[in-house]
Parts: sequence; C-alpha cells; structure tokens
Amino acid sequence: MAAAVGLKLLQVGTKIVGVGRNYVAHAKELGNAVPKEPVLFLKPTSSYLEPGGTIEIPHPLESLHHEVELAVVIGRKARDVPEATAMDYVGGYALALDMTAREIQSAAKSAGLPWTIAKGQDTFTPISYVLPKESVPDPDNLELWLKVDGDIRQKGSTKDMIFRIPYLISHISSFMTLFEGDVILTGTPEGVGPVKAGQKITAGITNLLDVNFNVEKRRRK
Amino acid sequence: MAAAVGLKLLQVGTKIVGVGRNYVAHAKELGNAVPKEPVLFLKPTSSYLEPGGTIEIPHPLESLHHEVELAVVIGRKARDVPEATAMDYVGGYALALDMTAREIQSAAKSAGLPWTIAKGQDTFTPISYVLPKESVPDPDNLELWLKVDGDIRQKGSTKDMIFRIPYLISHISSFMTLFEGDVILTGTPEGVGPVKAGQKITAGITNLLDVNFNVEKRRRK
Ligand SMILES: [Mg+2]
Ligand SMILES: [Mg+2]
Ligand SMILES: [Mg+2]
Repeated sequence: MAAAVGLKLLQVGTKIVGVGRNYVAHAKELGNAVPKEPVLFLKPTSSYLEPGGTIEIPHPLESLHHEVELAVVIGRKARDVPEATAMDYVGGYALALDMTAREIQSAAKSAGLPWTIAKGQDTFTPISYVLPKESVPDPDNLELWLKVDGDIRQKGSTKDMIFRIPYLISHISSFMTLFEGDVILTGTPEGVGPVKAGQKITAGITNLLDVNFNVEKRRRK
Repeated sequence: MAAAVGLKLLQVGTKIVGVGRNYVAHAKELGNAVPKEPVLFLKPTSSYLEPGGTIEIPHPLESLHHEVELAVVIGRKARDVPEATAMDYVGGYALALDMTAREIQSAAKSAGLPWTIAKGQDTFTPISYVLPKESVPDPDNLELWLKVDGDIRQKGSTKDMIFRIPYLISHISSFMTLFEGDVILTGTPEGVGPVKAGQKITAGITNLLDVNFNVEKRRRK
C-alpha cells in the first residue's frame, strides 16, 4: 500500500530539486565552503530508477559517485510557503541516490557551467518507494546509510543537515512552485565515493526501509 | 485547434532542456567561448508563462534579461535517437523566452554553481501556443524577433544556430530520455538585454506567430 502511494506520487511529479552541500562534513570533503544559502540544482524525473534497477555508467566513465540522500516528496502545491507551515506540504519521504559523474561535475564547476550532464542522466536518481508522511514521525532524526558490496561507505543523520526540511521547502517555494510529486533531494552526508560496474549498492533509512541497486556500464543501443 | 494541441503538449511535459551559447554572435556578446559541445541546463516546467501573462521580476532585482528562442516540443519518447531520424520525434514548435536573472547567473558562473535560481523561477519561461510540426516546414530557417515597448531588440534566424535541431535531439537523448511534451530551448541570437517593470515584450516567429507579455515586479503574497 505504501508502495502504491509512492509510485503514484513520483509519477505525477515534474521536477527534482537537488540541494548541494547540506552537510558540513560533506562540503568539506569536496573542498567546498559551507554555503550561506542552499545550493540548488535540478535533475529531470527521467533520471529516476526504481528499486532493484541498474545504475548505468555512461561511456567513457569508469565510475559514478554515490550520494545517499533523504528525498522529501511534496504532497500538494506549494508557493511562498512560510517555514511554520512548510511541513503541511510534505506528502512523504523516500531514500534516493544522487548519482554524480564527479569528473564531469568538476569540469563544469571550473568552467562555470551547469551540472546537467553530471547529475541528470537516465538512472542517476535511484529512489525507493515513498513512505507516507505518517510513518516518518521525526524526519530530522533519520539515519541514512549506504554500502557498496556490503562495506559501509556512508552513514549520517538528517539531524546534521545545515538547512532543515521546513527551511528548504520555504526557500525553494519562494523561487518556484512545487507541485504534488515533486521531490527535494536534501543533500548527502560525508563518505561519497566511486562505484564501478559489477558492484552492488544497498542503502537505507535505519528501521524504515532499504533498497538495492546494481551498477553496470551503459550499453548504448 | 493549434492552440489546443499546444496546451496539451506542454501540460504533459516534465522538463525543459535549455541550450546555451548556440548562436556565435550571442556567445560573443556575453564574452563566452563558442562551445565545442552544447551547453545544457534545465528549467522546471513550473517556470512556464502563458501568452499575455506577466513576467515577474523577483526582489531585489530591477530587471531580467530577455532571450528569445525557438522551442522544440518533443512529440514522443526519444532515447539514443540518431540525427538521421531525430526530426521524427518533434511534435511541434513554439516561441519561448528564456528569461534570465543575469546578475545571479554571473555570480553562479563565477562560483561554479548551477543556474537554477537565475533561470528557473516562476514566469521565467514565457511561451507561445505550440505550432504543429506540419505548419513549420523549415525550422532551420525561421526569423525570431523580440521588441521591448515596440523597439526591436533581437532579430535572428535559426539558420545561424551552431548546433541544429536534429543534432540537439540526438545529443540530449544520448544523456536523458525525452518524453512527449518535453521542450528544448534552442538558444538565443544576439541582442539580449534587460527589461524592467512596466515594460511590454512582444516577440514572434516571422509569418507564423507572435506573443506579448507584461513585465512587473513580483509582489510576494
Ligand atoms: Mg524538470
Ligand atoms: Mg547530492
Ligand atoms: Mg537561453
């Protein structure tokens, strides 16, 4: 039942708003300053990958970076929402991976160019089914984890987010209308790193859900 | 009838892929190198504005830049499409303005950050109704024009695009699946510049369509 709700919500959504550098330790591990405002980027919904699916590493890359993140799924139209009522606009939560072609992103940053190709390719947003909001009583205190071939790579708590969920909804909705099914990727804790073809990713929200994904080189038809 | 087709197409779409620096003269006017590959960025569909609507300049900005562009509207799912058959995936064409907060974009470029806030805010993609493909026999030879308060600011031909429509569809679809109703903004010819509150924009594709938009300061509710 939760799964059915989740699928429907993601299918009606039209955008994914990513938040960069939302955990101090992750900003530092990439050599970035801790931001005064959230860094926002867009991923297309065509980049979603369902649980159990295969993340595709496009030619000529040898790896992609995993970033495990809490996904906030919007439940109804939100525009200029104050922080105080922002949580009313949440429809549910999911676990997502913000897969990133780090070399492409680094080159784009140096050139002052968008991260579209680094972040937006098909299969670059593996995502779990959506948990209804009611089943996640404390989204500010969730443990996120990610393993590659059984080895723990990322483990962090949403309590370490620099910008919390109500702030993010309020801030983003001051720029753009959020619609039902739109997703906010709330940033990743430290421990990002490469995954290669043949490896398996498992990830989860402790006590709530877990997912797994395969990683292969993309075979272009 | 054309209008009805157009509304439906844009409403089912889930992404807008913008192409930057696709006309030599415009790349040069902003001091940018002519790219070897298309510069791609995403705009959310929440940024659409219908004909006759009001473009909103967000606080504390005094102006936005207009960029008049040919919008290619995808007619059916496209993934890894070769150039030779790319035009089969076009559903129609529209005239769009890629409104840009140039100061925000410049700061983002310098900092190596995405253009989301500079390009993606509500009302930042004013767009005409969609012309069915059949009514646009030669999309590579269309004159685009834009006036502010009746004074011509931009006039250019799609024949001066660096990357042509079949190449763009093929290239973009090699990274991400394009779905029915998705839009490619194909870049702007030279002459971009600021518009302020109280001004009126008219723009068109010569002999095919024209649209008009008001410009006001955003009044946050
Ligand atoms: Mg989108
Ligand atoms: Mg991320
Ligand atoms: Mg443009």
